[in-house]
Amino acid sequence: MTEQTISAAFYRGDRQFTVETTQASPPAPGEVAVRIAYCGICGTDMHVFHGNMDARVGFERVIGHEMSGTIAAVGDGVGGMAVGQKVVVRPLDHCGDCPACHAGHEHICHNLKFLGLDTDGAMQEIWNVPAHTIHMLPDDIRMDHAALIEPVAVACHDVRLSRLQAGEDALVIGGGPIGVLVAMVARDAGARMVISEVNPHRLSIAGKLGFDTINPMETDLAAAIDERTGGKGADVVFEVSGTQPGVDAMTACAATRGRIVMVAIHAQKPEVDMFRFFWRELELVGVRVYEKEDYEKAIAIIAGGGVDADTVITDVSPLSEIQSAFESLDSSPTALKSLIRVEG
Amino acid sequence: MTEQTISAAFYRGDRQFTVETTQASPPAPGEVAVRIAYCGICGTDMHVFHGNMDARVGFERVIGHEMSGTIAAVGDGVGGMAVGQKVVVRPLDHCGDCPACHAGHEHICHNLKFLGLDTDGAMQEIWNVPAHTIHMLPDDIRMDHAALIEPVAVACHDVRLSRLQAGEDALVIGGGPIGVLVAMVARDAGARMVISEVNPHRLSIAGKLGFDTINPMETDLAAAIDERTGGKGADVVFEVSGTQPGVDAMTACAATRGRIVMVAIHAQKPEVDMFRFFWRELELVGVRVYEKEDYEKAIAIIAGGGVDADTVITDVSPLSEIQSAFESLDSSPTALKSLIRVEG
Repeated sequence: MTEQTISAAFYRGDRQFTVETTQASPPAPGEVAVRIAYCGICGTDMHVFHGNMDARVGFERVIGHEMSGTIAAVGDGVGGMAVGQKVVVRPLDHCGDCPACHAGHEHICHNLKFLGLDTDGAMQEIWNVPAHTIHMLPDDIRMDHAALIEPVAVACHDVRLSRLQAGEDALVIGGGPIGVLVAMVARDAGARMVISEVNPHRLSIAGKLGFDTINPMETDLAAAIDERTGGKGADVVFEVSGTQPGVDAMTACAATRGRIVMVAIHAQKPEVDMFRFFWRELELVGVRVYEKEDYEKAIAIIAGGGVDADTVITDVSPLSEIQSAFESLDSSPTALKSLIRVEG
Repeated sequence: MTEQTISAAFYRGDRQFTVETTQASPPAPGEVAVRIAYCGICGTDMHVFHGNMDARVGFERVIGHEMSGTIAAVGDGVGGMAVGQKVVVRPLDHCGDCPACHAGHEHICHNLKFLGLDTDGAMQEIWNVPAHTIHMLPDDIRMDHAALIEPVAVACHDVRLSRLQAGEDALVIGGGPIGVLVAMVARDAGARMVISEVNPHRLSIAGKLGFDTINPMETDLAAAIDERTGGKGADVVFEVSGTQPGVDAMTACAATRGRIVMVAIHAQKPEVDMFRFFWRELELVGVRVYEKEDYEKAIAIIAGGGVDADTVITDVSPLSEIQSAFESLDSSPTALKSLIRVEG
């Protein structure tokens, strides 16, 4: 591959993207050039849009990491990859030489570079990435569905670290895009699921996806969970709301020896009922991104239809309309997952 | 055994004990009568003394549960126990029919009775207890040392649930009686230990016990732990302080994927750095009392000298002086574990 002219969306600060023509370099040694098909808009991308991450991303950054694509070219020293192969990228680049890497936790490397935030990302036609980040896809996968693999891998990681067993009672607090995906992956693993959510539109989507839902503004959540479980409580609780009431509910709803998975990112320190942790020997598990096996699991789930992708994907816009896509997602009460179609 | 006259110490409210002569009944069917040798004063007993548990214990209660003794008589239907056998009592009586019991977690039964709080305890010459609470002791164990088995079993439970491996770095935040015992059990399991403590007397005792200590009022604790561990942090952190600074330190000092064990009982909800749980995939484990295997481990440790019992036991008083023993412990900056000698 020689240098070629492509379209790319640049974040320019102040809630503005510009779509520009730029030059894509050939992949460097050890890299792969990926032709992007679709790229989803992540909650983190919305944080960028809102200006909350300007210090980290700057104003010349192509963001985006929830992508699907095909191999466009392969750099020197990269074996086993063919042009045209459908792929996704696990957007994590680790240092290999910190205590976390030495302990085998490369995905939470102390010096982790997140592709699409710390480097340019997938909201462009050609994206060059380190070859170790590539996962192969089956030929018959739908490329719009495949753009959900990254957020589904988050959910797979969360469910795996919860040690959820088939037949257990699980509660998701917060039915946004990640909460719904966690619920779908946990259901796929055999859990009896309940989703707690306050937004009526999200409650409606969760109901459409076949979930038992509770609005904790209307119903005493802990009492409802106790009633459903014969006084036991939820074996696994996923706190995805990022709110103080969510943190209060996570301890109130968990069974004795229950596992609470902290999926939400709490920028403020919430007050936590540590007495309940003692009293019921609760466990709290912090979770961040995903590991290789979570990506493989997510690929299998998407390929096998274990997630209702057509309901989760609520709209698709071309790259040229990325500005209005972000603005719509920001103001829409009904949107769940918005995709950008990057391919022409 | 027929009814017999014994001495017993009754909690009468308002920081007062009275030592009185009373009648000990023969053990009921399924019970064992234990002649008490020694009974330690637990932090919980100090809470009773301070009047914080009056609603639970009332004003006619014999408290005490950190005991050693010998079998004095055996009730109908109890097999395999001989009068004169040295024993300790695991002071937990479970209902057998709640979700926790059904899941095999009898030690944190939803209707748990704690002997010596919810029923009469060991600050009396003869104590009748359910036979299932009895653990046999080796003949050559010292009975004053054996009174440490209950708090050592707490420490064994905490260390077991931390999944500590030999060679790991562990930090105890709070060097009181339980903190020191946790540190000794963790050291016995092969951990590299550091104790953080602010009280100079307790720092001195911890040092005498051979521990590396840090005073976080004088030294940046997280920086000191990072320095000792090559930037990794502590693989296991035991939060035993029950304070907000302790809760702040537990997340700041933990390694990536580190396990934090919540040993302290936080009556108030502390603010917890949930972002750090996410960022480093930390784990928090709530722990409460002990299970049978923790008692067996504690008996083996005490019998084998794995805990420096003579340094931990800072004073011994006869039952007739229980009032001054509680008053001294309450005001002494140097006391670690005070025992009551119940036998005449």
